[in-house]
Amino acid sequence: MNCLLLFPSDFIPGQNNTARISGRRKEHLQSVFNAQTGREIKVGIVNGKMGTGIVVGQSENEILLDITVFTNPPAPAPLTLILALPRPKSLKKSIEVATSLGIKKIYIIESWRVEKSYWTSPVLSSEKLIEHILLGLEQARDTVIPQIEIRKRFKPFVEDEIPEIIQGTEAIVAHPYAKQPCPYRINTSCTLAIGPEGGFIPYEIEMFEKCGFKSYTFGDRILRVEYAIPALAGRIL
Amino acid sequence: MNCLLLFPSDFIPGQNNTARISGRRKEHLQSVFNAQTGREIKVGIVNGKMGTGIVVGQSENEILLDITVFTNPPAPAPLTLILALPRPKSLKKSIEVATSLGIKKIYIIESWRVEKSYWTSPVLSSEKLIEHILLGLEQARDTVIPQIEIRKRFKPFVEDEIPEIIQGTEAIVAHPYAKQPCPYRINTSCTLAIGPEGGFIPYEIEMFEKCGFKSYTFGDRILRVEYAIPALAGRIL
Repeated sequence: MNCLLLFPSDFIPGQNNTARISGRRKEHLQSVFNAQTGREIKVGIVNGKMGTGIVVGQSENEILLDITVFTNPPAPAPLTLILALPRPKSLKKSIEVATSLGIKKIYIIESWRVEKSYWTSPVLSSEKLIEHILLGLEQARDTVIPQIEIRKRFKPFVEDEIPEIIQGTEAIVAHPYAKQPCPYRINTSCTLAIGPEGGFIPYEIEMFEKCGFKSYTFGDRILRVEYAIPALAGRIL
Repeated sequence: MNCLLLFPSDFIPGQNNTARISGRRKEHLQSVFNAQTGREIKVGIVNGKMGTGIVVGQSENEILLDITVFTNPPAPAPLTLILALPRPKSLKKSIEVATSLGIKKIYIIESWRVEKSYWTSPVLSSEKLIEHILLGLEQARDTVIPQIEIRKRFKPFVEDEIPEIIQGTEAIVAHPYAKQPCPYRINTSCTLAIGPEGGFIPYEIEMFEKCGFKSYTFGDRILRVEYAIPALAGRIL
């Protein structure tokens, strides 16, 4: 946690500047930041500005912080991510790292090689997704919650939604068997599609290409999706 | 596991082509690859060639594979990684992802902001390091074990060893407070130094720069080290 995220409900009613922190965030403030009275901590208001919080009091159950916010969060990454649903453990990490990278729109989609059982994972629930989003924001010092959309059918998503999503962006599908290597520093907004373990099937790649995607390879090595996301973002952004 | 790694000791003496697999690798072959007789699996000989293994028999405790190897592993990444010792959980993941990326030389070093307790972590033992190396190789379909060097003193490492390590390479230190953004696609061998949580201290950055390192930023966002490695490698390689 490099920044403490605050929700409107953390503020004591009638005292706009004082926030009351308990639970996981309190534990973390105490164990990692040694949050003694007077200690200054980087904070951000969810979907709002960033600044500092000064510890002004603490009890067994909570820490009181005096909050001042004054700067905007870092600019969002100009990248929309389309991710074939990975296994639950990878999904958690993928959401965290995509959020840390500043990606603000993520589509989690069906694809032929997605294990059907993954769709029943509790990680896909809003409560779990927001947990991993918050971890990613706290890590990167950002406040803006990305929007995550879940699409359980491949064909209608690609046919009905993709054309609008990729409008005005460079659309890339990461495909291990593509011939062209992935380009560097694309100086425009991007849409990046990453397949499941084993990759998208040829029919899916064809559908992406028909919509205007270009397929690129990142080399012979197969990376876990949670590492492919930063590797590709690091290259194209 | 995208490739089964084989050791000389896996082969049945006198039968050069038949390997006997038990333990974690056997479980994985059965649960993920559904390794019935006749099934073909991608294999690699540790530090050697790659090819296929055909399941020719199985019992409760082992699987027998008929092995043929015929291709070289992918080319190594032209990158030496210098990593300030991260927390044990991140160290495991960092070793795995660096290995998956094809990095063949990794220095794990001391730095002012490294928590002293991390040096007592069992993850630093050879047995544990090799576990995570093997996971990284199996993931990326590679066979060549990277060399990991551990240096518990910063100053002698930088003064005595760095000049030789960086010879003929572009030497980069990732520094959140640097002014220049990290360049793309460096068409030569690189040495990349990544600091601990909170970054290298100014004195350390100065020492790196004195040796010929350039310090670059990857933007305002702070990534976990296991994600900073692929993000930076994806950009500079």
